[in-house]
Amino acid sequence: MTPQRVTLITLGVADLERSKAFYGALGWTPTREVAGEVVFYQINGMALGFFGLDALAKDQGRPDAKLGTGGMTLAQNFTTDAEVDAAYALALEVGAIALKAPEKVFWGGYSGYYADPDGHVWEVAQNPFWELSADGSLTLPAS
Amino acid sequence: MTPQRVTLITLGVADLERSKAFYGALGWTPTREVAGEVVFYQINGMALGFFGLDALAKDQGRPDAKLGTGGMTLAQNFTTDAEVDAAYALALEVGAIALKAPEKVFWGGYSGYYADPDGHVWEVAQNPFWELSADGSLTLPAS
Repeated sequence: MTPQRVTLITLGVADLERSKAFYGALGWTPTREVAGEVVFYQINGMALGFFGLDALAKDQGRPDAKLGTGGMTLAQNFTTDAEVDAAYALALEVGAIALKAPEKVFWGGYSGYYADPDGHVWEVAQNPFWELSADGSLTLPAS
Repeated sequence: MTPQRVTLITLGVADLERSKAFYGALGWTPTREVAGEVVFYQINGMALGFFGLDALAKDQGRPDAKLGTGGMTLAQNFTTDAEVDAAYALALEVGAIALKAPEKVFWGGYSGYYADPDGHVWEVAQNPFWELSADGSLTLPAS
């Protein structure tokens, strides 16, 4: 059995300082870092780290692989559409790539997408069926 | 300010049933699903979902995009090297693609990588500097 959990999300990036600047402009503060090598942020329940894209390919045992983005995405849920709009606008203001402006979506919520400077995709969403915990973490409602 | 948090990790996949079978063989149980459309698993602090790769590209507002994998990875940390070996062996046994067998690594831990049937990359690791909480979540030590 493999536990149903994740302890670290790693984003491979071309330039650690650029990533720190982008996420810093969103309001994020690094928790730990090894200068020029890796930066970690504490998030709910786990860590999110930035690591050189080439170093990540090498770490995966395939130094010549061209690693891709977009097929795995991260979402931030908010409680109101206005918060979604604000998060999307701020990201674009500080250098995100616009993918889809927030709009009402088929499943009954409100959602937009942007990519960070390395193409890592973030969704910003409001889901009326999912209640956020006071600390911002998410517990799925029972089926 | 955008909160330093993630509420949902989404993996775009070619075949939801194949994904359910693979993660089910690892020991995972779906928390919610809409048959043939999306499957969600509760993990520590957030949800992890599987969604069709084409549907994900469309949802991102770029239906013709060829979404990639490997540049964003997920890690499971364990407390012993033996647990890392067991998790890696089980994954391969149930259809994972071997990337790097677990080995001692430069930062002082023990780590291996495999890819799921869609190429989504998982690291299995033991990090002597990071203590896991009793519930399996991770709080980074202060700098």
